[in-house]
Amino acid sequence: MKNTFGCSIAVTIFGESHGEYIGAVIDGLAPGIKIDDAYIKAKLAERRPQGRISTARVEADEYRIISGVFEGYTTGTPITAIIPNTNKRSADYTNISIVARPGHADYTAECKYHGYQDFRGGGHFSGRITAAVVLAGAILSSALIKKGIRIGTHISYLKGVSDRAFENYEDDIASLASSHFPTLSVESGDDMRRVIEAAANDGDSVGGVLETAVIGLPAGIGEPWFDSFESMLSHGLFSVPGIKGVEFGAGFRMADMLGSEANDPIVAKDGKVYTETNNNGGINGGITNGMPVIVRTAVKPTPSIYKPQRSVDIRTLENKELRIEGRHDPAIIHRARSVVDAVCAIVIADMLSARYGTDYLASEK
Amino acid sequence: MKNTFGCSIAVTIFGESHGEYIGAVIDGLAPGIKIDDAYIKAKLAERRPQGRISTARVEADEYRIISGVFEGYTTGTPITAIIPNTNKRSADYTNISIVARPGHADYTAECKYHGYQDFRGGGHFSGRITAAVVLAGAILSSALIKKGIRIGTHISYLKGVSDRAFENYEDDIASLASSHFPTLSVESGDDMRRVIEAAANDGDSVGGVLETAVIGLPAGIGEPWFDSFESMLSHGLFSVPGIKGVEFGAGFRMADMLGSEANDPIVAKDGKVYTETNNNGGINGGITNGMPVIVRTAVKPTPSIYKPQRSVDIRTLENKELRIEGRHDPAIIHRARSVVDAVCAIVIADMLSARYGTDYLASEK
Amino acid sequence: MKNTFGCSIAVTIFGESHGEYIGAVIDGLAPGIKIDDAYIKAKLAERRPQGRISTARVEADEYRIISGVFEGYTTGTPITAIIPNTNKRSADYTNISIVARPGHADYTAECKYHGYQDFRGGGHFSGRITAAVVLAGAILSSALIKKGIRIGTHISYLKGVSDRAFENYEDDIASLASSHFPTLSVESGDDMRRVIEAAANDGDSVGGVLETAVIGLPAGIGEPWFDSFESMLSHGLFSVPGIKGVEFGAGFRMADMLGSEANDPIVAKDGKVYTETNNNGGINGGITNGMPVIVRTAVKPTPSIYKPQRSVDIRTLENKELRIEGRHDPAIIHRARSVVDAVCAIVIADMLSARYGTDYLASEK
Amino acid sequence: MKNTFGCSIAVTIFGESHGEYIGAVIDGLAPGIKIDDAYIKAKLAERRPQGRISTARVEADEYRIISGVFEGYTTGTPITAIIPNTNKRSADYTNISIVARPGHADYTAECKYHGYQDFRGGGHFSGRITAAVVLAGAILSSALIKKGIRIGTHISYLKGVSDRAFENYEDDIASLASSHFPTLSVESGDDMRRVIEAAANDGDSVGGVLETAVIGLPAGIGEPWFDSFESMLSHGLFSVPGIKGVEFGAGFRMADMLGSEANDPIVAKDGKVYTETNNNGGINGGITNGMPVIVRTAVKPTPSIYKPQRSVDIRTLENKELRIEGRHDPAIIHRARSVVDAVCAIVIADMLSARYGTDYLASEK
Repeated sequence: MKNTFGCSIAVTIFGESHGEYIGAVIDGLAPGIKIDDAYIKAKLAERRPQGRISTARVEADEYRIISGVFEGYTTGTPITAIIPNTNKRSADYTNISIVARPGHADYTAECKYHGYQDFRGGGHFSGRITAAVVLAGAILSSALIKKGIRIGTHISYLKGVSDRAFENYEDDIASLASSHFPTLSVESGDDMRRVIEAAANDGDSVGGVLETAVIGLPAGIGEPWFDSFESMLSHGLFSVPGIKGVEFGAGFRMADMLGSEANDPIVAKDGKVYTETNNNGGINGGITNGMPVIVRTAVKPTPSIYKPQRSVDIRTLENKELRIEGRHDPAIIHRARSVVDAVCAIVIADMLSARYGTDYLASEK
Repeated sequence: MKNTFGCSIAVTIFGESHGEYIGAVIDGLAPGIKIDDAYIKAKLAERRPQGRISTARVEADEYRIISGVFEGYTTGTPITAIIPNTNKRSADYTNISIVARPGHADYTAECKYHGYQDFRGGGHFSGRITAAVVLAGAILSSALIKKGIRIGTHISYLKGVSDRAFENYEDDIASLASSHFPTLSVESGDDMRRVIEAAANDGDSVGGVLETAVIGLPAGIGEPWFDSFESMLSHGLFSVPGIKGVEFGAGFRMADMLGSEANDPIVAKDGKVYTETNNNGGINGGITNGMPVIVRTAVKPTPSIYKPQRSVDIRTLENKELRIEGRHDPAIIHRARSVVDAVCAIVIADMLSARYGTDYLASEK
Repeated sequence: MKNTFGCSIAVTIFGESHGEYIGAVIDGLAPGIKIDDAYIKAKLAERRPQGRISTARVEADEYRIISGVFEGYTTGTPITAIIPNTNKRSADYTNISIVARPGHADYTAECKYHGYQDFRGGGHFSGRITAAVVLAGAILSSALIKKGIRIGTHISYLKGVSDRAFENYEDDIASLASSHFPTLSVESGDDMRRVIEAAANDGDSVGGVLETAVIGLPAGIGEPWFDSFESMLSHGLFSVPGIKGVEFGAGFRMADMLGSEANDPIVAKDGKVYTETNNNGGINGGITNGMPVIVRTAVKPTPSIYKPQRSVDIRTLENKELRIEGRHDPAIIHRARSVVDAVCAIVIADMLSARYGTDYLASEK
Repeated sequence: MKNTFGCSIAVTIFGESHGEYIGAVIDGLAPGIKIDDAYIKAKLAERRPQGRISTARVEADEYRIISGVFEGYTTGTPITAIIPNTNKRSADYTNISIVARPGHADYTAECKYHGYQDFRGGGHFSGRITAAVVLAGAILSSALIKKGIRIGTHISYLKGVSDRAFENYEDDIASLASSHFPTLSVESGDDMRRVIEAAANDGDSVGGVLETAVIGLPAGIGEPWFDSFESMLSHGLFSVPGIKGVEFGAGFRMADMLGSEANDPIVAKDGKVYTETNNNGGINGGITNGMPVIVRTAVKPTPSIYKPQRSVDIRTLENKELRIEGRHDPAIIHRARSVVDAVCAIVIADMLSARYGTDYLASEK
């Protein structure tokens, strides 16, 4: 399946950084879902670089839906959405096309595609492609919102600076929606930006940790083997460029806990069951328990840095010193957040549609 | 697909803790692979509880292959392997069947299966099922070894105690193969065992972090979207009970690095390309680069503890105090290691067979 | 996926003619479905050879369910059902194992499995395996019946003898359920049996055409591309050994019709929509229209005949005269009927579960 | 998966008759395959209506590849190809949008998509969409040709008129490539055209039978259960609008044969194995045997006829007399041929890539 995720709702991503279009096909989405143009545009804008801490390559992202939507609603047949690449400067990349950029996929693409890959700007591996993911995710998350399911992501950690944890999920998720640099604490956000700017001034880059909450999910979603809720979500998340770690609930901190600390006490009140703590991140045995799903993703520092690096010409296998030029982000974590939100929407929409049937997301009916 | 992983080689897991058999079907494995009975038995023994730090329920794990093997070799048609459950003590579980055990899947199973689940001993969610995973993994990993691919896992961290990192991969992996408590440093292993015993004496339990290395993998395996090497491996790993985090290479530590630190310098020597560091864990852009694949998994403390816990009767929704009896592990991390090895073998065998064709693993030809 | 059919409900078939067990895994079936032992036994008996027109190899088919069922109901986790092979006479087959039987898979199995296939009695290609398919189909069709969906198959044609068409579907399907040689007209059945006996006396064999009706299906099931209702059903049916043709409604007779004859006039009455004729076999544009689904399958003559045949030793590539001995059916069409019913149940259960959600078949709730 | 076929090479079809674009995504195709623009254009032209026996709606089919091709070669990442719809006359269809056209998917689309479907010109169900299938098929078949695999289809039967059978496969397939009305006998073609014109003059339509040969396939392709070669091919073929029957080799004629007639004698000569007859159509036990694969498909008469028909308004459920206007084909069989060729290429490319690995079709390497 390769570039497709999902069975009940299948999302296929295509395109290259310097190709004519990038885009996505969403197959299996219920008919009757209103396409919310303003919401989609807001999501694309959220991901778009802006300010000093992002690349100077800015795309208008003027998406078009060329199939599967009729009179403003999904038809139930495959939705194809495309975004033109307009701001291409291939000349920047001719040098890089030969000397592999460390931390990038240049060398592995050569191993896999035997030299036929479109190397311009990273080709299919470019962060540019994530605009198509965000587009697909926006279409799906607008349907999830109608079912009461909300997804929000903040930068929980960035090189020494921590953001506060989620407190009131509804409000916190709402507050993140309008932010270009999503932190729950304004001060933390300011501190993080300063760290990024310092790295940028030094020709360097930083990564960080994103924390995502999903609320409103019904209990009972996920499979014991092999399609656990964690399995499916991590499958999607690890395909996002730059993500090197995924943990749920207390995650790696579990290694320092006793069972009596890690187990979440279960409580019933007014006919509802919940847990007092949420160390399991809303998932037990691979299945949602009705608590907020908490997932954290480690984003590596942007590999494109301006400092000289040692590398190899992948055609001649000569050792070289590489100096990357062009336009690059000193941090992508605030933009990766939009991609993480989108991937969560893609995965969750598929799992719900598989669980409750293909009409489930057609909430308008 | 649910209980099946893989497309080219598909592994399906079935069974319940107190059912007649647990087992696995392996479909799509090449013909002509010798079934190495001694190797399979060794792998099953490795996972089997022993000593004071494990449950007293010990199963003989006398597996039988009932299809797909003829005259000692795989035929190419589906292999079905089953293991009888002999040491069942259902009486231990009648109480637990009603009051959900915190950290377990009792409540989520009820949400998903509406009360029809086999709740005895955790049913399909029991760690017992992992014996079937280890069995399938052993069949596949013996084929991988013939292709020069080796998988090894050690306990890299356990509640304050760290093991040393991999140094010489070949030797370290070989040394782990013969150990029931897999650490690279003997002293670390002793210290960890002491921590487990202390928790056990207190009626409590501990988790930890496993670190796995895979060596001998060709470069060029994995897909940019969505089936990255990390995506596929994490998909498998997160279905293992108790795993709450997965990271590759430097993983979450990437959040404290600069790009200039995180990027692995690329070097060519004698026509071979490698990286000087391996912060990316052998994977760039979702595709293997020929370096060892390094993956770490966070294992939560065993949720079955003897201390009293607050919980809920899932049928009546009354709040209850739960006191778990029966036989339980104060730590499963040393046993989870065998499951992690097996899952890696399952995922990698599938990816290689998809990449190079369905006869690839038939190395004897 | 190979030996697995279905996504929402996945059925995997395993086993060989002379192996220890044949069996099936059903993954994804809803919890809460009562296992109807009498119904399953009746279906297995229906397929079992009996009388002069079938092989003398008779198996008791004493199936066991070793996972996924608890206290008589499905749990929602994978159901594994196995049938032991008891009546094996491998000695009959030593000669055949070398000289390919024309019309059988002996030569193609050698091409695919490079000599590692279990050649005894046809191995995984044996009609014996269809008992596992019938077993899986029986579990699923008992759930379909609860939803008002019934499947019935008769021998509509056999070498010059035609059976009458379906008239009253409910009654006709009911009448077929109790018959070992399923025809709607008693006389046609007698005539067909005479044809089979004549062929048998001559050491020869015959095929025929099966016609299946499925009633009670909701309208709106199937996909335009590529998973049309016809696509899915034919996918399943063409995996049944000996089936060489599949047609829906008027099928190949469409080639002699004008559009004005072939089009089924649409009528509304009392708020229900139906068609006056059913040349389209209950399917338009790949989607069910609420009329009975009519599918016909061409079954080739049993390839195992006693007449001498020209063939080749697949190991030495010498030309040989082959004389098949052992126990063989002069016709399998009346037994293939049970397999066709089962495959229809497998395909339809999957499509309904995908359409309406994984709890759909749990009608007892 | 729905609108996607294939696992190793996955083809997704999208678009509607009156949408902006129709198109296809091909994911998983090997890198390094030259895109043969002239060949693709010829295939699209072959399908395009022309002359008196086809609709007057003629599209230029000016396809564009917007991803996955770089400097004229496939990159190995998803190929997206789109074709604009230019010649749209929606006004023709307003009446039809309400009264279901018999034999069409209007009513079933309403059942499935609850009124949200794009009904203009049949929407996603339109024969127009098959241009995207032909486009995808052309890209794949040009790769197959490099591997020595050729596909050819002729009209073997049309309402009383038979074409001769394949004789010299190579030459016959070559001769069909250049024909807009593909018959092996010129006289048969003339007779068939006269039958079509007579039907057209009467406001009626005709169907027919296509016969396809695939030569050059290696032996050993296909799976016993459930992905037999016949299963996979029929799965693809039955998704083509208007196809109601699929048979392999002697197909339904098997019902009149004895086993001694149907079995194909096997012969070895000069180290090669073949069969003297080919009643099994090149497939035994679901696996190719190296002989030409022969598949016949029944195409129903075009459902759009000018004669008045009885039908129902699908919104009001009133009975109506329907008079179809607009531009329609009195026969589509000669155009369906291009779609059948394309579907065969799609299915076979996927099966070969799964069998031999994802680089198999990159013959240029």
